[in-house]
Amino acid sequence: MDHGKQSLDAHKKLGGKIALSLKDTLDDTEKLSLYYTPGVGTVSSYIAEHPDKAREYTWLNNNVAVISDGSAVLGLGNIGPLGALPVMEGKAMLFKHFANIDAVPIVLNVHTADEIVAAVEAIAPSFGGINLEDIAAPLCFEIEDRLKKSLPIPVMHDDQHGTAVVTLAGLINAMKVTGRNLKDCRVVVVGAGAAGTAIMKLLHEYAQPEILAIDSKGIITAARTDLNDDKQQLLAISNPRNLTGSLADALQGADIFIGVSKPGLLTPELVKRMNPNPIVFAMANPVPEIMPDVAKAAGVAIIATGRSDFPNQVNNSLAFPGIFRGALDNHVRDITEAHKLQAAEVIASLVENPDAEHIIPSPLDERLVPRIAAIIK
Amino acid sequence: MDHGKQSLDAHKKLGGKIALSLKDTLDDTEKLSLYYTPGVGTVSSYIAEHPDKAREYTWLNNNVAVISDGSAVLGLGNIGPLGALPVMEGKAMLFKHFANIDAVPIVLNVHTADEIVAAVEAIAPSFGGINLEDIAAPLCFEIEDRLKKSLPIPVMHDDQHGTAVVTLAGLINAMKVTGRNLKDCRVVVVGAGAAGTAIMKLLHEYAQPEILAIDSKGIITAARTDLNDDKQQLLAISNPRNLTGSLADALQGADIFIGVSKPGLLTPELVKRMNPNPIVFAMANPVPEIMPDVAKAAGVAIIATGRSDFPNQVNNSLAFPGIFRGALDNHVRDITEAHKLQAAEVIASLVENPDAEHIIPSPLDERLVPRIAAIIK
Repeated sequence: MDHGKQSLDAHKKLGGKIALSLKDTLDDTEKLSLYYTPGVGTVSSYIAEHPDKAREYTWLNNNVAVISDGSAVLGLGNIGPLGALPVMEGKAMLFKHFANIDAVPIVLNVHTADEIVAAVEAIAPSFGGINLEDIAAPLCFEIEDRLKKSLPIPVMHDDQHGTAVVTLAGLINAMKVTGRNLKDCRVVVVGAGAAGTAIMKLLHEYAQPEILAIDSKGIITAARTDLNDDKQQLLAISNPRNLTGSLADALQGADIFIGVSKPGLLTPELVKRMNPNPIVFAMANPVPEIMPDVAKAAGVAIIATGRSDFPNQVNNSLAFPGIFRGALDNHVRDITEAHKLQAAEVIASLVENPDAEHIIPSPLDERLVPRIAAIIK
Repeated sequence: MDHGKQSLDAHKKLGGKIALSLKDTLDDTEKLSLYYTPGVGTVSSYIAEHPDKAREYTWLNNNVAVISDGSAVLGLGNIGPLGALPVMEGKAMLFKHFANIDAVPIVLNVHTADEIVAAVEAIAPSFGGINLEDIAAPLCFEIEDRLKKSLPIPVMHDDQHGTAVVTLAGLINAMKVTGRNLKDCRVVVVGAGAAGTAIMKLLHEYAQPEILAIDSKGIITAARTDLNDDKQQLLAISNPRNLTGSLADALQGADIFIGVSKPGLLTPELVKRMNPNPIVFAMANPVPEIMPDVAKAAGVAIIATGRSDFPNQVNNSLAFPGIFRGALDNHVRDITEAHKLQAAEVIASLVENPDAEHIIPSPLDERLVPRIAAIIK
């Protein structure tokens, strides 16, 4: 039986992957009057007078919303809110499994930045944090920026920052393994959407390497007239020598290829334009920009992908559970660039002796959540 | 220790009354790839192509949102979304305990009808049903009407209809006990807010008795110039003889008093204006319009209240769990007046031998949910 069919059957059998549970029983009228009327009235009055105490008396101390409009779901694109729901339920499972966080999937039937921001702001008092998920670029940037400013709770678009943190963690160890220094590397990032943009920003923050951003039209450069605001902003952190040209041009003399783009985009011929022993993060899903065996044969020193069936999986679930655990536990209102850099360093540090096949820890490493949570403060 | 303090302590100890749980474990990578990527991609694609199948593969078949803007919380009034949250968590407990429904508390930071409708419409694809709760009149009427029209899932404002259904159920049995026929009764309803309005509409639908609606200014009558649209509409189902005057005037010759108003409003002197052996539903919370012993002493034949420590508790939790259970199980898009009338009859029928102290079944009666659910189709 093929895997897709297995997954369909498993979902149908469960009829939903998540459920609500009660933290105490309700089996006598005393409990009813303690947790519901009339007792709850005292709690409501108290919170109304002391709103900062809400998290002590409600599930706000442990819940987040996982919010998507379904506009960029996995590799499937804009499939809408109902199509996104099983992914958000899956994400809620990961939140619970890895970090014991109660995550609620919220899929939105609105698709402009104004509408999405308004909807999330409206429901925000219900949650201790907001994980934005699978919202298409460039809208995702504006939406996250606005919500981070307006809401008193942590907001993170995981497709951007989860991916960026784990990518940086992997690169930190890849530097050790290949004896490089990130600030001296030329980094080519293919895909200037949510993940690519966040990766470039975090790498720039970390070490200011020379970055070249590539989209479907080639190198992002000041001469281009087709750049939206978000791509214009990339010029401040990329392409310092104002290069123009194609991916092939960009790769000439590059040390690091980071792909969040399309299957098969990186050919062995392109790899050979790079510096010796290059590092390749080929994160297109489910089929990477270059398959690991092909990359190795073309001379790649270290290859990472998004897949669990190859070494060095760049997996968001290494980062977001600990980041939100820390934000909830330490009452952190804003997840900052500094938090992300530290989280990447923590993740990298969990690989004691990195080698070409071990630059990223396993998502099952139980040290991840407590160690990351401890630095989100 | 007083009860309020006990409740505060219990809430603080739990740190939130509800949590998320997983319907299967995630303890190996096979499960991860079945419920999350890559397997979930097949489910998402399938739902995107067949949106009507979403409920079979997600928790939509068993979840509802419990939504409030905190504008009319219990007897506390407009205490805002954070103050409302513990009540909504309590309601979620009731949903789970009585009907095994996964209810998610959503408290809103917006307060106009347009904003509330927009927010609920935006998040609606996340839920199999919408329970509106503790939203002040008259906004609650417009909001429910608009959402019932616009959304493809069942929407019910429980403060209106849950209360109305259980009130009618109690009256059906009170008629049997006192040998009356509802259509021949004069009914005085004090409080023309959410619950009072819904009660009047349902009683009118059921038997067209003579109803007099009373608000803080007295009998609602065509001559008044201070009536909003919703109160104007009550003229179609109340006050057929176009009476004017106070509560005392209205009670002259009345058979039934229904109070969703203020503690102590119904004095023994007022009771004595009513017909012999009157029926009194004194549902102000936590202190009723008249205490049961005082009512009995003044000649009341049957007294019901909202309290669990007296006989005949008019308790919403007799109705809403079964109504939503049926709506979810039978794919009912619209909870109709006919459903509510039938639900009231089912509830009344569960009291085999009604007497003055037993006109309403216990909320713990396990026949309630399946019997009500069976008629919501």
